[in-house]
Amino acid sequence: MKNCIVAQSGGPTAAINASLAGVISGVINSNEYDTLYGALNGITGILDNRLLNLSKIFSKNPTMLDQLILTPAMHLGSCRYKLPNYNEDASVYQQIFAFFQDKEIEAFFYIGGNDSMDTVDKLAAYAQQIGSSVRIIGIPKTIDNDLCVTDHTPGFGSAAKYVASSCLEIAHDSYIYKVKSVTIIEIMGRDSGWLTAASVLARNGYSTAPHLIYFPERAFDLNEFLEDVKELLTKQHNVIVAVSEGIRDKDGNYISASTKTVDTFGHSQLSGAGKTLEYFLNQHLNIKVRSIELNVLQRCASHLASKTDLEESFQLGEHAVDFAEAGKTAVMLTINRINDTPYAVEYGCVPVCEVANKAKDVPLEFITTRGNDLTDEIITYLKPLIQGEMPVTYEQGIPTYLPVDHLLFD
Amino acid sequence: MKNCIVAQSGGPTAAINASLAGVISGVINSNEYDTLYGALNGITGILDNRLLNLSKIFSKNPTMLDQLILTPAMHLGSCRYKLPNYNEDASVYQQIFAFFQDKEIEAFFYIGGNDSMDTVDKLAAYAQQIGSSVRIIGIPKTIDNDLCVTDHTPGFGSAAKYVASSCLEIAHDSYIYKVKSVTIIEIMGRDSGWLTAASVLARNGYSTAPHLIYFPERAFDLNEFLEDVKELLTKQHNVIVAVSEGIRDKDGNYISASTKTVDTFGHSQLSGAGKTLEYFLNQHLNIKVRSIELNVLQRCASHLASKTDLEESFQLGEHAVDFAEAGKTAVMLTINRINDTPYAVEYGCVPVCEVANKAKDVPLEFITTRGNDLTDEIITYLKPLIQGEMPVTYEQGIPTYLPVDHLLFD
Repeated sequence: MKNCIVAQSGGPTAAINASLAGVISGVINSNEYDTLYGALNGITGILDNRLLNLSKIFSKNPTMLDQLILTPAMHLGSCRYKLPNYNEDASVYQQIFAFFQDKEIEAFFYIGGNDSMDTVDKLAAYAQQIGSSVRIIGIPKTIDNDLCVTDHTPGFGSAAKYVASSCLEIAHDSYIYKVKSVTIIEIMGRDSGWLTAASVLARNGYSTAPHLIYFPERAFDLNEFLEDVKELLTKQHNVIVAVSEGIRDKDGNYISASTKTVDTFGHSQLSGAGKTLEYFLNQHLNIKVRSIELNVLQRCASHLASKTDLEESFQLGEHAVDFAEAGKTAVMLTINRINDTPYAVEYGCVPVCEVANKAKDVPLEFITTRGNDLTDEIITYLKPLIQGEMPVTYEQGIPTYLPVDHLLFD
Repeated sequence: MKNCIVAQSGGPTAAINASLAGVISGVINSNEYDTLYGALNGITGILDNRLLNLSKIFSKNPTMLDQLILTPAMHLGSCRYKLPNYNEDASVYQQIFAFFQDKEIEAFFYIGGNDSMDTVDKLAAYAQQIGSSVRIIGIPKTIDNDLCVTDHTPGFGSAAKYVASSCLEIAHDSYIYKVKSVTIIEIMGRDSGWLTAASVLARNGYSTAPHLIYFPERAFDLNEFLEDVKELLTKQHNVIVAVSEGIRDKDGNYISASTKTVDTFGHSQLSGAGKTLEYFLNQHLNIKVRSIELNVLQRCASHLASKTDLEESFQLGEHAVDFAEAGKTAVMLTINRINDTPYAVEYGCVPVCEVANKAKDVPLEFITTRGNDLTDEIITYLKPLIQGEMPVTYEQGIPTYLPVDHLLFD
């Protein structure tokens, strides 16, 4: 028997199950591998032996695979677990590789973000040290799009499509009153502004919202912000601002850190960047100001997923199985862009050590001199990633997703 | 010439343009009426003569009507304008009826919520006093579903579908970690809990979220809430709570009023109910707690509109024209439910004075004794309203909505 195991880790995206579906499809169609196990809740499912037999479950019912592609978050559950350095504590590693031997595992696929690639890196290094032939392969995902080497990350395109579509819908909501107003939309991305940048795709033939866009990559200046807003208000009624949750001042302090919420018990907690800017403008402008936090739906609104994103994510999963069969290990899959128009990609892999614990920011040359908008180059980069819609099915008026009973009742 | 005029008022919904499309279609197909004008920004567009010739614009390009049905917020813009009592100040009324005479207006359609029905009521009473034959007709809309007499309100079904679908997607997002957590979802509805109630439609064969639901109609008790959450946490990892923004304690004080945000300048502002409960649980439970405010997308995410809602809203618009032709005035259109399963409605109208300045709460018998859930009866009532999806088209990856240049550049 030659078996494989797959797990998912980190924060949810709308595409991480599409990569899982790709791995399942790859193993079901493989001549090399027999069973594909799924470990529940990331690497911890290996440590406490909580498994699904995915190849069995999904080969019985092929339509489930289509449903899986479209289901948000992690079908196998997630974890936030950092492996210790194996030179300091090898016991977890010994347990994992004993499990691999016991289950006749030849390949381990880990679908996740930056932290998960650290796990892949460490496991692969340990495998090499003990002379294990188990292939350790990372499949990227993150709505933040901040992984290195790969042109973009699975999950980003769907989040970007949600952000752009929501910004357009919020623009329609804002344009109805003939009174001066500012609407601030706070977008996820603590350290990188890629998702905030995607708000630029909301612009169309009649709507130029968001009219101002701010990123963590460039120091944020409250006075310049106020000037920018005031200047726009001389020309238009409604100003719509897209802002990353992670904007910082020139000293690196989060803008959100300047406003605290104090409850009746005297405890305080930080507000978000959007709320902070709302309060700030309310002090300086006598007009309607509101802030809207695009919440976790950015990463889990699968009904609005990007077809391009889900197809690529699935492909990465299938290719991961191919790479394992071809003997690759200690690698992370990558999407390599061949062409912008027509958009074309191919799939590859790079040593995971080139990716783990590194981050890719929005390059400063994509941001305008004033720091409040983007250049056209980034639109060319971003636009293909949100193209296409998936055939979502609805039951009783809500989207049909694949049940996750195994996460709820184990 | 026999002309009509239509305007929109109050807060946006995903269905208010469908009613506008119904009025346009009704007039274009009418043998009685010639031109349909649209007043921009509600009644204020009549006062300052800002008009579109809708029958001309839309009969030239019939596909625009399909696009209008699916476009969020108000194509004609909105206003927040309360007419004075005409016994105290008749000048605005004189101006409006002089306009009607000048443009040969025979019928005025006002699409809006409670405040707009007050305008309809006042204009109709004034028309009667001066012996004007102009028909004054109200077409309801509000995501709050709190208008009297009508079985439900246009716009509610689409907001309800968004709330239910989002709660399911957030549930998937929450279930992934095998650690105790509470997710609080704050839903719109300052005074009525209908939209919060719609969260119950997120429940399906595998997910019972939201596990607790709280309404403004019933006094909210923080200690009972804590007990409810603790009890559930003994049985499951993730507890998902749906809560109306308007929950109040037994003395009628908003729960949100117990937490204030203080900025660096010492100004303070209320947090929402969700954030307040998040802080409260953080003080009493040593687990992950987060709150999510379903923002304005509840009312403007047209890409997820309810087909039932948009079809009914369109029908109301068409019927409004029929009723005007039949000589009705001082009325508001209503949706009358004939049957639950199969769901069937018919359209009628009632004297607007029976509706204006009144509100319909969630009946207490629909809420469980403990006040944290709903009975099955309300599910039977709610479910038909979110059924069906619209054929949304996308351009460059974002939804195609009807341009609103006339709101931006006038």
